[in-house]
Amino acid sequence: MPLIYPPSDFEDNRTLLKEFCERHNKFDQRIVLITSGGTTVPLEHNTVRFVDNFSAGTRGAASAEYFLEHEYNVIFMHRLKSLEPFTRHFNGQKFMDMLELNDRGPNTTITVKPDSVDVLAPILASYKAAQEGGRILYINFTSVSDYFWLLRAACECLAAYGPRALLYLAAAVSDFYVPSNQLPVHKLQSGAGVPNINLQLVPKLLAPLVSLWVPHAYVVSFKLETDESILIPKSRESLNKYKHKLVIGNMLQTRRSKVVFVTLDSSYELGLSREQMLNGMEIDDTIVSNVVLNHTDFLQNHKY
Amino acid sequence: MPLIYPPSDFEDNRTLLKEFCERHNKFDQRIVLITSGGTTVPLEHNTVRFVDNFSAGTRGAASAEYFLEHEYNVIFMHRLKSLEPFTRHFNGQKFMDMLELNDRGPNTTITVKPDSVDVLAPILASYKAAQEGGRILYINFTSVSDYFWLLRAACECLAAYGPRALLYLAAAVSDFYVPSNQLPVHKLQSGAGVPNINLQLVPKLLAPLVSLWVPHAYVVSFKLETDESILIPKSRESLNKYKHKLVIGNMLQTRRSKVVFVTLDSSYELGLSREQMLNGMEIDDTIVSNVVLNHTDFLQNHKY
Repeated sequence: MPLIYPPSDFEDNRTLLKEFCERHNKFDQRIVLITSGGTTVPLEHNTVRFVDNFSAGTRGAASAEYFLEHEYNVIFMHRLKSLEPFTRHFNGQKFMDMLELNDRGPNTTITVKPDSVDVLAPILASYKAAQEGGRILYINFTSVSDYFWLLRAACECLAAYGPRALLYLAAAVSDFYVPSNQLPVHKLQSGAGVPNINLQLVPKLLAPLVSLWVPHAYVVSFKLETDESILIPKSRESLNKYKHKLVIGNMLQTRRSKVVFVTLDSSYELGLSREQMLNGMEIDDTIVSNVVLNHTDFLQNHKY
Repeated sequence: MPLIYPPSDFEDNRTLLKEFCERHNKFDQRIVLITSGGTTVPLEHNTVRFVDNFSAGTRGAASAEYFLEHEYNVIFMHRLKSLEPFTRHFNGQKFMDMLELNDRGPNTTITVKPDSVDVLAPILASYKAAQEGGRILYINFTSVSDYFWLLRAACECLAAYGPRALLYLAAAVSDFYVPSNQLPVHKLQSGAGVPNINLQLVPKLLAPLVSLWVPHAYVVSFKLETDESILIPKSRESLNKYKHKLVIGNMLQTRRSKVVFVTLDSSYELGLSREQMLNGMEIDDTIVSNVVLNHTDFLQNHKY
């Protein structure tokens, strides 16, 4: 099992999660756990090669910004080096290109070029507000095993929020892993011929999460497919199996412009018009607004 | 074969490479092709899952800065989103935290905090000098197939430099791939049981590269191992097989502090002292200085 040993920084992260959840758990404050980015499956103990799941982390990173706007406190649990809220708008070279060096020896200053200020200022202001209010906690994972440990630790802290906790499980989690006792210790040698990778199914954590760890929370999962004909059936199969509230289905090819919200008894599409896309609007804004509405409904109808 | 079809932006990249090489090919100008980061092996045509090689791209990105200091023009061929020279020193949040927002309505300005200017100013100056002189070309790849196409295209342009071309092959290239005709079209379904991944050995490009594409260039490859006992034998095996000039061997665990230079008839270690590491010196500085010395020797002894 890959799950027997916790990752090395696990206790530090558990402390951060506990502190964050306790600090914000007052009045009617809502909290969202966003998982984002792909998980890896190491093929060697000293990991050189691994199987990865495609995900830049755009959905999770963008959604985090919108949840902050909706007054949620945010645990952003993401793949190391995947996209993060705010900084996702700029890569390293874009940052460098925005800067102007005014070289005056000991009085050297660096300023952002005036024409970049318009774009950067509102993002920087939101970033700083979230940081200063301590309203977002960044936690990162790499392997599917890291992810499982951290997800369970987060749920332990979120349980106290009851229905005010929202789980927005956007990470692309591997379905497969290589059992630890079958991993070679050293890098696979190509001279030794082609390796035989013996994959096993990963146990599905959504079942105990929904029924045992956070039984009162509003749990949303995502389904990414490339074959449209199975998107809604697969989403509903998941709802039937795990008994959570909502599956957001999306196609790899069109995931930036439309999604489908699937519940046990309904399904409806949300999408951006061509005009909205040209205006720079993001589908994640629409998704989060609708999830928040559903969460509000759920809270109003919830009886402990 | 994954190599039959070129990547979609291949012709654009080939044009960029050609233009860059022709523009700098005068007098005694030297040029280095640095490959950096890992390659992916897709497991599906609509890629959701892939096998990846561990590499942040630190070696290649750092080395690019040092080659620029040594007056080389640099083709930086790197895995999309791996580390890049200059920007590698700062991640997104570090950038944001260096900035100060002076909110005065229409006269809003953003400046770098005085205590960050000392660190950022020299890096920004080097970045801008390289950009303005057009001395570095950024080209990126994702899959092992992209990498092969681009490497061959670069060699076509570099051949005209004869021995003034240095190839510094630091990318972590997959030894294995899944033949295109065995790739499933859609995302592997976990419900269908555990997938059988049928890997094949990737053809080694170093052989035609050294003997046919750039027969006069100075070619350096890297060898990363986790088992120290095989590092030098494996490096020498590679030199015997491909007939290039130098293998730089490193161990996964200690690659930031020491390497071993292996040629057909010698091997010697280069390392940083504890004091040098504490002073923030990088082993890549030492590596590049020594490679440049070797390249200079080679140029002086070279007869067309």
